[in-house]
Amino acid sequence: MLDPQFDADGNLIHLLSTEGLSREQLTRLLDTGASFLGVSDRDVKKVPLLRGKSVFNIFFENSTRTRTTFEIAAKRLSADVINLNMSTSSTAKGETLLDTVDNLCAMHADMFVVRHESSGAPHLIVDHLRRTGRSDIHVINAGDGRHGHPTQGLLDMYTIRHYKGGFEGLKVALIGDILHSRVARSDIHALKTLGAESIRVVGPQTLIPTDIESLGVEVHRDLDSGLKDCDVVIALRLQRERMSGALLPSATEFHDRYGLTHERLKAAKPDAIVMHPGPMNRGVEIDSAVADSPRAVILPQVTFGIAMRMAVMSVLAGG
Amino acid sequence: MLDPQFDADGNLIHLLSTEGLSREQLTRLLDTGASFLGVSDRDVKKVPLLRGKSVFNIFFENSTRTRTTFEIAAKRLSADVINLNMSTSSTAKGETLLDTVDNLCAMHADMFVVRHESSGAPHLIVDHLRRTGRSDIHVINAGDGRHGHPTQGLLDMYTIRHYKGGFEGLKVALIGDILHSRVARSDIHALKTLGAESIRVVGPQTLIPTDIESLGVEVHRDLDSGLKDCDVVIALRLQRERMSGALLPSATEFHDRYGLTHERLKAAKPDAIVMHPGPMNRGVEIDSAVADSPRAVILPQVTFGIAMRMAVMSVLAGG
Amino acid sequence: MLDPQFDADGNLIHLLSTEGLSREQLTRLLDTGASFLGVSDRDVKKVPLLRGKSVFNIFFENSTRTRTTFEIAAKRLSADVINLNMSTSSTAKGETLLDTVDNLCAMHADMFVVRHESSGAPHLIVDHLRRTGRSDIHVINAGDGRHGHPTQGLLDMYTIRHYKGGFEGLKVALIGDILHSRVARSDIHALKTLGAESIRVVGPQTLIPTDIESLGVEVHRDLDSGLKDCDVVIALRLQRERMSGALLPSATEFHDRYGLTHERLKAAKPDAIVMHPGPMNRGVEIDSAVADSPRAVILPQVTFGIAMRMAVMSVLAGG
Repeated sequence: MLDPQFDADGNLIHLLSTEGLSREQLTRLLDTGASFLGVSDRDVKKVPLLRGKSVFNIFFENSTRTRTTFEIAAKRLSADVINLNMSTSSTAKGETLLDTVDNLCAMHADMFVVRHESSGAPHLIVDHLRRTGRSDIHVINAGDGRHGHPTQGLLDMYTIRHYKGGFEGLKVALIGDILHSRVARSDIHALKTLGAESIRVVGPQTLIPTDIESLGVEVHRDLDSGLKDCDVVIALRLQRERMSGALLPSATEFHDRYGLTHERLKAAKPDAIVMHPGPMNRGVEIDSAVADSPRAVILPQVTFGIAMRMAVMSVLAGG
Repeated sequence: MLDPQFDADGNLIHLLSTEGLSREQLTRLLDTGASFLGVSDRDVKKVPLLRGKSVFNIFFENSTRTRTTFEIAAKRLSADVINLNMSTSSTAKGETLLDTVDNLCAMHADMFVVRHESSGAPHLIVDHLRRTGRSDIHVINAGDGRHGHPTQGLLDMYTIRHYKGGFEGLKVALIGDILHSRVARSDIHALKTLGAESIRVVGPQTLIPTDIESLGVEVHRDLDSGLKDCDVVIALRLQRERMSGALLPSATEFHDRYGLTHERLKAAKPDAIVMHPGPMNRGVEIDSAVADSPRAVILPQVTFGIAMRMAVMSVLAGG
Repeated sequence: MLDPQFDADGNLIHLLSTEGLSREQLTRLLDTGASFLGVSDRDVKKVPLLRGKSVFNIFFENSTRTRTTFEIAAKRLSADVINLNMSTSSTAKGETLLDTVDNLCAMHADMFVVRHESSGAPHLIVDHLRRTGRSDIHVINAGDGRHGHPTQGLLDMYTIRHYKGGFEGLKVALIGDILHSRVARSDIHALKTLGAESIRVVGPQTLIPTDIESLGVEVHRDLDSGLKDCDVVIALRLQRERMSGALLPSATEFHDRYGLTHERLKAAKPDAIVMHPGPMNRGVEIDSAVADSPRAVILPQVTFGIAMRMAVMSVLAGG
């Protein structure tokens, strides 16, 4: 089957997953992101690339932070932005997802940014657009269930390339709650394609998906072995709000075994960077002393995220 | 009493109801709507007609869909849009409706789009603006109680004219929950003014207002007789959320008697179009096989709705 | 300690409080506000002063009215506006206030408009920005706990100057619920700096803070003595929603003792103006006959509020 992210000419027209993107395509996206950042890496210039276009932020699951970054990115591109909080809308009146999509299509949308609690919802929408002849509308997956969060994956790649110069020979560790993380899979696919040497996932058995080794990663139960000689350490949020009963570790116990402290980080390379997708649980998966240290690049990740979302929107729209 | 929708020179300055609009005025609005649609009927060009103007979407009753269509229409006209969810605002602190209106007036609004659960609320606002000398602010009724939803009426007229070429000799049937429909009354007034030959309302006794015949429509209890030789069939949403107890029909029973199927539609003309204001209850008032068939023009209604809301805004503002 | 509102060169870069602003600075803000008002005092021209800038409305406490006035002001200055309802966001996931702030900083914000239920939250944010080297982001306090609401204070000063020509020799009375009012303190500081002759607070013992006299105001329990010969009467909203048990006065009893009626207002000067920050409790702190009379300037306050918020934003951004 053809990858639904591409049109017949091989142009990227939707972003559903970092899986399926070639090294060249990923590199082009990262280069486009770089073009939006000013000299200070703090500034993003406003450009007219999407003037007259309408970007619909369709959030079936509330996420102020992610919605905001897409809204800012779209406005920096001069698009009109329509925010739709779908948890309070017609879907509550029993309308089907695809009827909702059809309606939004009919409202002159140019781009859908979709957040959904079900894995695969953005794919379903893309498939429906294709069948109904509306492939002129571009879809960006802003997080679907546990499946993926590709713009987060891309901004993580941008951050790594920015601080490490490239991916050759890199050792990268993802720490903690792999099971509930949309980010982990997006990072793993992109890191493999971009040529990282070693990718490790580190966490307790209950928080690591059983099929994860099929993605070509090393699984570590022990933090010290997982961090050994790493260049990049990505702490993941312990998503306690998605756990219950036997699965739910105590925050203290989790921190004792997997929390990132300066002491534990001695196992990694001295110049290892520490990343986190936010929001952080300070004192759980990461110590404040680490989060606020120069090796933490958590806030630059946010800044790069605006630029990478602009990059995705402009590449999709530009054909 | 003078119609509050017009100024002393007979210009349309508010849209409260399709009642009171002449055939010429309705036709002018439809023609203006047509001017905003591109060649594909999918596109709406962005135009600077309301640049520098502020449109306030004042929703006392939540409706993501309607709010979104007005927001898109206003942005396509280059207006600034302020969304006000009044169910969570100062009115909850005991402020009166008219004090709220006075405050919003004082914030340099140029246009109010008002949705309210009480019939007549937009009229009350227009009356208050007149008494306080603020007739420079235009009011659009975006649905008030069971009374009306005039922009929906206008987009329905646009759709009918688009597919049928005009209104002369047309037979139109409105099916189902007439009682709770804001749309039915708006459609009926416009259809009569525009010269439709026959307007029928079809549904169970409990869902048809007792005074409806005074509007000059035929009432049918039986779907087959109601549909007979119709050119246009408008299915209405069964608003079960507004019913209780004895009034509440079972969905199955309702579908058996009034649900639109291809079989039942054989009573209508072979080229009859099927409309629905959305959101649809598939399998209740309309079968999926009908909703997804070429005779259904439900999604074009949505697209035309953006153009007609632009038309209303620009005609009101343009004087 | 230096006033955190100013940079090393003495430029106003944040607005946290009316306290600390000199007469010259207050006057400059009022003059800037005047420049945004058209000849009719109803119009505000749209100007490009903040084009390309991003204003973040960060509301930890819901306030549709205040959020809307800042949104309108920012859009009139051609800024991009991002609304963040923080009561439903990541802070609910346990993120600290300062982590949230760091994240928003990293999203290319140029200005934060902050509403928070805790007194001092905007100061905390400014202090954090300074420590983290982000003094390029301007902070406006849009109401913090019981502490202050400086833009309301400024619009009140604008209103007084507009109707009274200046502050020399003026007698001003603040009536009612001083205890829960963020406005009272902001007004008092500004009035003292601008040279009002006499400032009185009038209300029951339970609704007047014990330390208020240290601000240099007269305290009156009796409405007649408080109103005597006043030029300006500011009624405050009785914030019953913040009271409980013994503190909660009955609305009737409060109105009998402190409600503004035409009869009671005879104690003030014949040309005294009546102000109110809204939303009003008609029949509690103010009679409808007074609220709707020509001496009430409550709606002009709202209009001036847009101009003054534009003035604050443009002065902060302009350096």
